[in-house]
Amino acid sequence: MNESAFIEALKALAAHPGARGFEDDCAAIEIGGETLVLTHDMMVEGVHVLPGQDPADIAWKLVAVNLSDLAAKGAEPVGVLLGHMLGDGDARFVDGLREVLETYHVPLLGGDTVRGDARRAWGLTAIGRATHRPVPSRTGARPGDTVYLTGALGAALAGFEALRDGTGGDSTAYRRPRPLLAEGRTLAPVVTAMMGVSDGVLLDARRMALASSATFALDTAAIPIALPEHRRADTLRWGDDYQLLFTAPAALALPVAAHAIGTVLALGDAPLLLDGAPPAPDDPLGYQH
Amino acid sequence: MNESAFIEALKALAAHPGARGFEDDCAAIEIGGETLVLTHDMMVEGVHVLPGQDPADIAWKLVAVNLSDLAAKGAEPVGVLLGHMLGDGDARFVDGLREVLETYHVPLLGGDTVRGDARRAWGLTAIGRATHRPVPSRTGARPGDTVYLTGALGAALAGFEALRDGTGGDSTAYRRPRPLLAEGRTLAPVVTAMMGVSDGVLLDARRMALASSATFALDTAAIPIALPEHRRADTLRWGDDYQLLFTAPAALALPVAAHAIGTVLALGDAPLLLDGAPPAPDDPLGYQH
Repeated sequence: MNESAFIEALKALAAHPGARGFEDDCAAIEIGGETLVLTHDMMVEGVHVLPGQDPADIAWKLVAVNLSDLAAKGAEPVGVLLGHMLGDGDARFVDGLREVLETYHVPLLGGDTVRGDARRAWGLTAIGRATHRPVPSRTGARPGDTVYLTGALGAALAGFEALRDGTGGDSTAYRRPRPLLAEGRTLAPVVTAMMGVSDGVLLDARRMALASSATFALDTAAIPIALPEHRRADTLRWGDDYQLLFTAPAALALPVAAHAIGTVLALGDAPLLLDGAPPAPDDPLGYQH
Repeated sequence: MNESAFIEALKALAAHPGARGFEDDCAAIEIGGETLVLTHDMMVEGVHVLPGQDPADIAWKLVAVNLSDLAAKGAEPVGVLLGHMLGDGDARFVDGLREVLETYHVPLLGGDTVRGDARRAWGLTAIGRATHRPVPSRTGARPGDTVYLTGALGAALAGFEALRDGTGGDSTAYRRPRPLLAEGRTLAPVVTAMMGVSDGVLLDARRMALASSATFALDTAAIPIALPEHRRADTLRWGDDYQLLFTAPAALALPVAAHAIGTVLALGDAPLLLDGAPPAPDDPLGYQH
């Protein structure tokens, strides 16, 4: 059974109406008149973190990527549960965990620790409370909407390269991503669709277009990047920046600063158009799990 | 930083009133007038499962041990989130997952899949809704209460040995533990303290006694076991049976069948007495994480 078959099998099991599937979205459940938003991400040494990376950064990122999922739902964090494989550098792990939890005022509710191994894995579940209902999803983009991005992409890519190559360049954006919780809460009441850009803006825009049964026509030159122009193609296909991608009616005055990067069209032959043309069939568009 | 220091550091971070700590208890949060009960357990290949074990059994156990945590809180499962490291036997994993979710009518809400490794790890978060408040904890045992156990111990130990030694003996109890959800819900309104026996009845009784600031005096011969008498000492120190350990006023007629195994006393010199005497200082009492 290959990975995509496995994920399809899980999605078939996830028949609950609040189950929005794996990898790329949160679950939502109704409890006592509130909507809880839940997400769970795993990180594996050597896959999601570089060898020798500071465990404090691993802890930060583990929490931040999950909070970023809540941000895209306009949800306020209620708490997190940690699954931790014990090993070297655990004191640093606790330092990073404390920092990120204090920075975002998120309580640690509990979890599990298990004996470690040569290559370790961590899991984190974040629980949030929806601040606006319906909870923003990726299915609501409508023809005529404008496609927006909250900020520039590429700082995480630059940080990854600096860390990997030991250049001494600034790697903060890669190591310590910042979930846009306040922006997500402010945007939730006005967007038609919203998601966090975790796997690359082109790939995630295509996902949102497919979920909304629409075509997204992006103006790639309008997408703000934090890297030199000759790195644009890479930057648009790299994740880890955790900006918010959203759609809203074209005439709407936005409550937060954002960059218009394209237009939603009625679904055509392709769900994604880049400067008027569909991407090449072999273009991965982003980080494929 | 050793394991217990790490866990203490996490407990210090878990300052939320609903955080009941790591390893051995659930978290609880108040949402919209309801109490949600949350638990997260990790399993690692070679540590928590035998080499070559059927992935369907791994999936079953991963869900069942978390549901067992909810059972001890009298909580009704709302759903689970899965963290899964991809690898061989994933089709069987899905089979086992489907079986356990259907058996207990629990929806899969979402989760994450990550690329695998030689030794794999899984995490599961289970969310439940409290059916009785206050939610039973391990802190409420009072002098004069009787200590009860819902059923016999040792079937999981026998199953583990059969599987490990390839005897062909029945290993169901080890591979497919059954969370006592109905029993937990029925007991929740009448117990003074309750927990699942996951690490051995003696160790867990000592934990409950410490949490309740009391001494538990157990009559070890009264503890029902499913193994021959000469295995009693091992059986009382082995986990994985997931029976419920609870205390209730001695005069109370119980709503479910259970075995009286001891008495709660005011806290004395030792939190645990076995047939009138404290256990030897070097007795591990059960499975120490």
